[in-house]
Amino acid sequence: MGSGTIGQSWCALFLAAGHQVTAYDPNPSRELEIRAFVSNSEASLRALGYSNAGSLTDFCFTTDVVKAVEGAQVVQESAPENLALKTQLYRLIEPVLDRKSTVLSSTSGITLEMLQTCFFDPSRILIAHPFNPPHLIPLVEVLGNESTAPDLIQWTLSFYEGLGKVPIELKKSIPGHIANRLQAVLWQEVLHLAKEGVASLSDIDRAIVNGPGLRWAIYGPNQLFSLAAGADGLEGFIDHLGPSFQDWWSAAGHVELDTDTRQFIKRNYPSVDENERRAIQAYRDHLICRILNEKKSENRVAPGDHLNPPS
Amino acid sequence: MGSGTIGQSWCALFLAAGHQVTAYDPNPSRELEIRAFVSNSEASLRALGYSNAGSLTDFCFTTDVVKAVEGAQVVQESAPENLALKTQLYRLIEPVLDRKSTVLSSTSGITLEMLQTCFFDPSRILIAHPFNPPHLIPLVEVLGNESTAPDLIQWTLSFYEGLGKVPIELKKSIPGHIANRLQAVLWQEVLHLAKEGVASLSDIDRAIVNGPGLRWAIYGPNQLFSLAAGADGLEGFIDHLGPSFQDWWSAAGHVELDTDTRQFIKRNYPSVDENERRAIQAYRDHLICRILNEKKSENRVAPGDHLNPPS
Repeated sequence: MGSGTIGQSWCALFLAAGHQVTAYDPNPSRELEIRAFVSNSEASLRALGYSNAGSLTDFCFTTDVVKAVEGAQVVQESAPENLALKTQLYRLIEPVLDRKSTVLSSTSGITLEMLQTCFFDPSRILIAHPFNPPHLIPLVEVLGNESTAPDLIQWTLSFYEGLGKVPIELKKSIPGHIANRLQAVLWQEVLHLAKEGVASLSDIDRAIVNGPGLRWAIYGPNQLFSLAAGADGLEGFIDHLGPSFQDWWSAAGHVELDTDTRQFIKRNYPSVDENERRAIQAYRDHLICRILNEKKSENRVAPGDHLNPPS
Repeated sequence: MGSGTIGQSWCALFLAAGHQVTAYDPNPSRELEIRAFVSNSEASLRALGYSNAGSLTDFCFTTDVVKAVEGAQVVQESAPENLALKTQLYRLIEPVLDRKSTVLSSTSGITLEMLQTCFFDPSRILIAHPFNPPHLIPLVEVLGNESTAPDLIQWTLSFYEGLGKVPIELKKSIPGHIANRLQAVLWQEVLHLAKEGVASLSDIDRAIVNGPGLRWAIYGPNQLFSLAAGADGLEGFIDHLGPSFQDWWSAAGHVELDTDTRQFIKRNYPSVDENERRAIQAYRDHLICRILNEKKSENRVAPGDHLNPPS
């Protein structure tokens, strides 16, 4: 439901995993876009082991949202971030939804409580927020609450696991969920350091990719810091580096995305043409797949992970 | 100079790259530790293409710091983060240092200005801060200033490039340089989200590794966000998501590393035993090498990178 960038990407993934997919969008020209996206993502998804990647046999497209959801087990809603619009769509589909179907919203900015007000029965709508590009990045942030049907959060986690994703259950509603909030704080300090003249925006990107970013693809900060302190673990890390962290937190920058920051970016960060953009995207997607496959070829969970099962 | 964890790691790298290395430490038992580290890191460094990895032919160890630096072209100082101690070492070595030798301090917490006060001639001491583990992670943060000898910053950048590293020049002194400050702001929000009950520390690690961290190993946030907005680039990204980022910045958490936080970590983050720790470290190091080699096998700079040459 909704066939923009995110919807197209979900669609390619669901098809690659062998599901029947009906895509809905009010704009009929989206059909060609989706079909092109499915073809273009075939190589990446095949590299990740999705044997049905690229197949459009089980795909259909409609501009009629009611037809789109009839008989559906799962509705992945990726409509624009506009509550009025989502409300309208939800009101149209609820009467025809199967009682056992699940509506999963890709929203990043609208709360579950707000989405639930659009339904007479709020028990089968959850948030399942992907991370760009959704067909390749494993993370899906899943949120239900006390109005959610019993076991439906667990069912949803299993659904995404079955698609080869890594769903993380959010125990509490918070704007931006986890990943976007973390991206945000990181980017604020990036902008601060660049505006302070410590290094260019591009050099800071380069520092991340060749430094902490390289490690964050493998372990999160808790595990890495815990490892750094040896036998003393995360508490030992705080004993050793806590005072420095407190200093850096106090000195962290506050940036406004105002005219000044926009001008700074305009002056200091080059825009790229269409060809270059395609090359950047292809390189990003290729390496995402390679890194995921390197991990898979280890043929086991990462050491340490079994001590911290998903909670 | 200084043969703790960081010094051992530098030592393994310099030897692997074919340099003659004299390691200094006041503690003679460090010699065996270094020799073991060089052996243990042989496989990783060989995987990265260092043909001399593991060789100890050009290695010697001394507990006499004056002997250690005699005739040295480069002194990588990795003594404990204690200005009095570094001052003492610098005063001892300056009289015997070759006029053309360069002293590179691995310090993360002491400013260049403070280090320079330890020398009669402050023109040949720079900061060259590695990122753990230094023998594998490409990033080296390099800082000189107006007292630094002409061209010595450039020489230092070339020196580390010649070692296969990715040096980034810091144009301004700031506590924590770049990478540690970025790690710090990220970790503060991680702790905040965990303490707020949004997800466990381990689930947040898992979200990073399977979400933003996976991308940060490939491109930095500026390039990724620029890509996300298509033809409109980074400014278009701000038009689209700026208000959300401002909200997330306002709502970002402030954490103190106080008793409360320590107790929270103690209760919620398991410590691991020696065997598990070794496995975690081996997995980390193996994947760092695999990711670096995947990038190298593309046999070109990352698309987009040539538009943003190091500044």
